[in-house]
Amino acid sequence: MNEPLIPVILGTARPGRRSQAVAEVVLDVMKQRHLATDLIDVADYPMASTAAEEAGTRLDHYRELVAAADGFVIVAPEYNHGYPGELKLLLDSEFAGYGRKPVGIVGVASGRIGGARMIEQLQQVVTALRMIPVLPSVNIANVTEAMNERGEFDVAYLGTALDDMLDEVEWYARQLAVARS
Amino acid sequence: MNEPLIPVILGTARPGRRSQAVAEVVLDVMKQRHLATDLIDVADYPMASTAAEEAGTRLDHYRELVAAADGFVIVAPEYNHGYPGELKLLLDSEFAGYGRKPVGIVGVASGRIGGARMIEQLQQVVTALRMIPVLPSVNIANVTEAMNERGEFDVAYLGTALDDMLDEVEWYARQLAVARS
Amino acid sequence: MNEPLIPVILGTARPGRRSQAVAEVVLDVMKQRHLATDLIDVADYPMASTAAEEAGTRLDHYRELVAAADGFVIVAPEYNHGYPGELKLLLDSEFAGYGRKPVGIVGVASGRIGGARMIEQLQQVVTALRMIPVLPSVNIANVTEAMNERGEFDVAYLGTALDDMLDEVEWYARQLAVARS
Amino acid sequence: MNEPLIPVILGTARPGRRSQAVAEVVLDVMKQRHLATDLIDVADYPMASTAAEEAGTRLDHYRELVAAADGFVIVAPEYNHGYPGELKLLLDSEFAGYGRKPVGIVGVASGRIGGARMIEQLQQVVTALRMIPVLPSVNIANVTEAMNERGEFDVAYLGTALDDMLDEVEWYARQLAVARS
Repeated sequence: MNEPLIPVILGTARPGRRSQAVAEVVLDVMKQRHLATDLIDVADYPMASTAAEEAGTRLDHYRELVAAADGFVIVAPEYNHGYPGELKLLLDSEFAGYGRKPVGIVGVASGRIGGARMIEQLQQVVTALRMIPVLPSVNIANVTEAMNERGEFDVAYLGTALDDMLDEVEWYARQLAVARS
Repeated sequence: MNEPLIPVILGTARPGRRSQAVAEVVLDVMKQRHLATDLIDVADYPMASTAAEEAGTRLDHYRELVAAADGFVIVAPEYNHGYPGELKLLLDSEFAGYGRKPVGIVGVASGRIGGARMIEQLQQVVTALRMIPVLPSVNIANVTEAMNERGEFDVAYLGTALDDMLDEVEWYARQLAVARS
Repeated sequence: MNEPLIPVILGTARPGRRSQAVAEVVLDVMKQRHLATDLIDVADYPMASTAAEEAGTRLDHYRELVAAADGFVIVAPEYNHGYPGELKLLLDSEFAGYGRKPVGIVGVASGRIGGARMIEQLQQVVTALRMIPVLPSVNIANVTEAMNERGEFDVAYLGTALDDMLDEVEWYARQLAVARS
Repeated sequence: MNEPLIPVILGTARPGRRSQAVAEVVLDVMKQRHLATDLIDVADYPMASTAAEEAGTRLDHYRELVAAADGFVIVAPEYNHGYPGELKLLLDSEFAGYGRKPVGIVGVASGRIGGARMIEQLQQVVTALRMIPVLPSVNIANVTEAMNERGEFDVAYLGTALDDMLDEVEWYARQLAVARS
């Protein structure tokens, strides 16, 4: 098979979002691993309710991206121990295309916990969507400590965590791409 | 003290939402119990990201309602085992006003589980917001079976579940209204 | 490959457990599907703390069963919205053998929710153990209504839910048995 | 009223448990705050199944301690993102005595997350038991770094986290002790 296609979903649209800088580093690392990837930015799919019609043709594009993917990485902050509302709105706009595809989650937080509680809740949602929640997750705590004055996130802050997660996402993506076809 | 003020938050803005008919019945029952209440409809606070500024003066009104309240009832459907994104966007737009106030949750679902999984996730969020998650919850399964051709929800379908929950919400609201002041 | 080996873990040791009758029906259905299976009864591995040494040679046997398996079905009741302590003690006594194997969960309850909240918590644990939580789950509500005077559980009460779950567990078990080897 | 009685439940019986040293420091801090407290050690209530009869008269003692309490602090490690089985066995052996009493949770972990995922699951269980889950929680990450060669835990490692939590547990314990009576 070709290289598996594993887009990165950026799960917050909040102005000043630090997760964007993290997502860009994740994309870089994935490209260095020769994975096919691209950014799906929740900010490109604004919705004010769980109603697919609302976002119209934009969501058709989202569904095409989901259908073509072999797996996913989600980069998202934790808000009050849960996931961002805008991420849930986007995830809930599709169902069939997610099935039997692995997803790794990168939690981003300004505090010490690194988004671990958001990840636990989001794993329940992706399980309901028939995805495979893959561990280890990546927990980025105290994210501002890893950002420079230009707003760039330092890849060294990740240690081996991201590669460990991508190893597993990639393994599932490869095995199940064959099996689904 | 006066009667405690316990608004009902309707947690979905999806067109055709059945939770609206349930929320109206909840308001009726609360008024018969001589509770002060009012509807906070998430559809009145459209947001496409977790950014309080976005909704502007509307959110000032939401915060005033939250600050004035002694407790809350949330009526919401379950989407993919989690809470609606639009409900999370609204809840995340405030923090201080929620503290030390009870909240009872009514789950609405077309399936057999009655929103129980959404309630579990939402309890974690309201705990993070410093509210008191109060049991028993109300699980409305197979909601369409309890609706007539005019789209009205039959209060009899609730049995004693709503009153059991309101007993507890009201007990906390009364005790802690005094304690907070 | 040979038929995948998918043991059933009975997750409560409480005297009078109704989950035992359910587990026996699950085993019957699996054998009719020509799956290789066997019962792992948590009651055979008594432990009073999370300490593998305690249960000694018995746990060596559990680990052999886990290592040989291609997937799992867990049948368990819900206690106070969580999983039974004895089930957690047994699951925590092993790690490496679970990896990349699917697990379907059957919730058993005397109430209306059918163990859905236990299933959500248990999905988080099995994800941490590197298993794949597979949906749909089976929710057996009001379990006593489906039991006769001899304590037997009526398979008809399940409808298509168990087969739908086994379809998915079996699909993963077959695909990943090849991939792991 | 007298000082509120807030026992500390030590939630693991695993040999070599580091949570014991943490629980002892928590007890010291509480005594300095002139709170009435005592240790409830899960190791004193060995059970191999969720069956209250099994532990017999010992559990009568546990129930008396619970009934007399005005609130609780639970100190427990995280095992595979969940709570220890032995802690769940003990909690499930009682119900009525917990109602309308606050509980603060101290998570203990050798890793970086500090038990945050265990706390989220345990909050759902204590909510089901009609307790009030109180935030902020205490997350003790990398616990071994805070222990000396005699196995003692350094109180300074806690910063203000424990006092912040106890402020809130104590506030609820005082207010609701009056209200329950």
